[in-house]
Amino acid sequence: MNTPDAMLPTDAGKFSCWAGRRVLITGGLGFIGSNLALRLAGLGADVVVIDSLVPEYGGNPFNLEGDGLDGAVPPVRINVSDIRDPHSLRWLMHDRELIFNLAGQTSHLDSMNDPFTDLAINGAAQLSILEICRQHNPGARIVFASTRQIYGRPRYLPVDEAHPLDPVDVNGINKIAGESYHMLYTRVYGLQTTALRLTNTYGPRMRIKDARQTFLGVWVRAVIEGQPFEVWGGEQLRDYTYVDDAVDALMRLAMAEDAVGRAFNLGGDGVYSLADTAALLASVSGGRYSIHEFPAERKRIDIGDYYADDRAFRTVTGWVPRVPLEDGLQRTVAYYRRYVRHYL
Amino acid sequence: MNTPDAMLPTDAGKFSCWAGRRVLITGGLGFIGSNLALRLAGLGADVVVIDSLVPEYGGNPFNLEGDGLDGAVPPVRINVSDIRDPHSLRWLMHDRELIFNLAGQTSHLDSMNDPFTDLAINGAAQLSILEICRQHNPGARIVFASTRQIYGRPRYLPVDEAHPLDPVDVNGINKIAGESYHMLYTRVYGLQTTALRLTNTYGPRMRIKDARQTFLGVWVRAVIEGQPFEVWGGEQLRDYTYVDDAVDALMRLAMAEDAVGRAFNLGGDGVYSLADTAALLASVSGGRYSIHEFPAERKRIDIGDYYADDRAFRTVTGWVPRVPLEDGLQRTVAYYRRYVRHYL
Repeated sequence: MNTPDAMLPTDAGKFSCWAGRRVLITGGLGFIGSNLALRLAGLGADVVVIDSLVPEYGGNPFNLEGDGLDGAVPPVRINVSDIRDPHSLRWLMHDRELIFNLAGQTSHLDSMNDPFTDLAINGAAQLSILEICRQHNPGARIVFASTRQIYGRPRYLPVDEAHPLDPVDVNGINKIAGESYHMLYTRVYGLQTTALRLTNTYGPRMRIKDARQTFLGVWVRAVIEGQPFEVWGGEQLRDYTYVDDAVDALMRLAMAEDAVGRAFNLGGDGVYSLADTAALLASVSGGRYSIHEFPAERKRIDIGDYYADDRAFRTVTGWVPRVPLEDGLQRTVAYYRRYVRHYL
Repeated sequence: MNTPDAMLPTDAGKFSCWAGRRVLITGGLGFIGSNLALRLAGLGADVVVIDSLVPEYGGNPFNLEGDGLDGAVPPVRINVSDIRDPHSLRWLMHDRELIFNLAGQTSHLDSMNDPFTDLAINGAAQLSILEICRQHNPGARIVFASTRQIYGRPRYLPVDEAHPLDPVDVNGINKIAGESYHMLYTRVYGLQTTALRLTNTYGPRMRIKDARQTFLGVWVRAVIEGQPFEVWGGEQLRDYTYVDDAVDALMRLAMAEDAVGRAFNLGGDGVYSLADTAALLASVSGGRYSIHEFPAERKRIDIGDYYADDRAFRTVTGWVPRVPLEDGLQRTVAYYRRYVRHYL
């Protein structure tokens, strides 16, 4: 099979309305953004992506330009710019019907080491995007990528949207601000914003250099390099979304009635302990792993168990995950076995 | 009586520990900050105040330097600088034992008209204060002035600290971030932070030029100028803290055991409708007022009724309000009858 997953035809009937739609994706050379760009371009949308290509973040030109597309280079316009630059944003946003606002600083440790940069990207730049929409493109639909990190350590499980927000790092505080600005601009100015609180998303095109995006990145890298990967703890419960399912969720949210002004959890196909996840990855890849005690400096900002109650989102959009964790891990390993050199 | 309220001796036994304490007050030429500076200086503390004197904010040199002190000029060191300037902050903060962090942008409408400035002051500058403490003065006690605005429209009354945070303006979103950074820096780095969520504070030295600090400001100004003041709505319920009681609360919080890492509501001596408040102000001042329908553009960011459940704070600190609303309004009117020219 040479066609990447994201190029497979999807519910064509439901999404035929994507043809010709003017779409902007911030963070569009990143993991989820590039998968979304490929899917939308394949459906005939007019896709512009913005990405800053900050080396520590998720952007990677190979995601949209490389031979990972097997020659099927999609008609996506790539614009390298930073969402902290309001001038380029204004021009790029002014005629877009749909804005998938995925750009962000996602590393929890980076947010503690440099909280000002995290605030500039996850706070001030989000305000800038919304101000530009308000002034120059008030009719655009905006889908914001939020995160489970805003809940902090769960007080009950599964975590629904009414759970208190009490994050354990600067990143979580700033993501609350970013999401809240979106909801506020709907309430006060009538902008068409929605938000999706993502859990662990994984799959082809994720960052595997380090754990800045997801711990699964470094696990997969170790597998590909023939090294044992390290599991910290093991009993913590998590849920996972395969990237194609996350893309499907974002697209459904963009089109859903009754979603404007609301933020929804997104979950996955089930709940897994880290140890179970590791065993699954090892079994699909032939990889090895070792389990270690959780280090103290990570424990301060660890959240314990987490899994989402995403029934509200499923009700509003009809979304269900199609790719079970085992399949998703298999596809992910297959991708990186071919293309790992572009991700190191 | 020539001594301003804030210079009156207060529970000298309890607070004798203030003599010689090295205190910094951000926003110290403002309303609450200047009253606090006077009280602490009167108790023998070594007080430095920082204020940016941005004309639209609460800082007013008359609050600490003018003839409103009746010659009893307190030994307060005034440093005009902006909390957005980390260099001056670093020097001014490095040897302080107690930091009352009161500087902020408080206007809800200004936060909507210029959300970036609100974020720079209420978000980024707060991070800067905490980073400086962490790096150069980790033992300082920090008392942060938070606000009831973070709750948004109350879902139940009275509002306790477990009430969801869902603010109706950019100011509220950024104040959540500012408060959350404080709590996080205690949790992660062990800084000694506490926060007090203030309701309507009023009294001598408040801004009366406009409603940027509290609607009571413009009401009192109209009374002093012999004009009727305008009441919008009238049925909304509110609670009020006389500034001397707010100062007492901040001082108690600075000293309280079991307060570190926690944010508390502060209320007042009771619950009043706006119409009742107006009638009380008119009766103590001989002023007149008219009641008008609530304008649509304010309604979008109005919060309806609010009053605080502040039992947690009273339990931890022993605080009780001493100045009923009627007395407080009378003292406020008396102050502005003498000094109004310095506040216009």
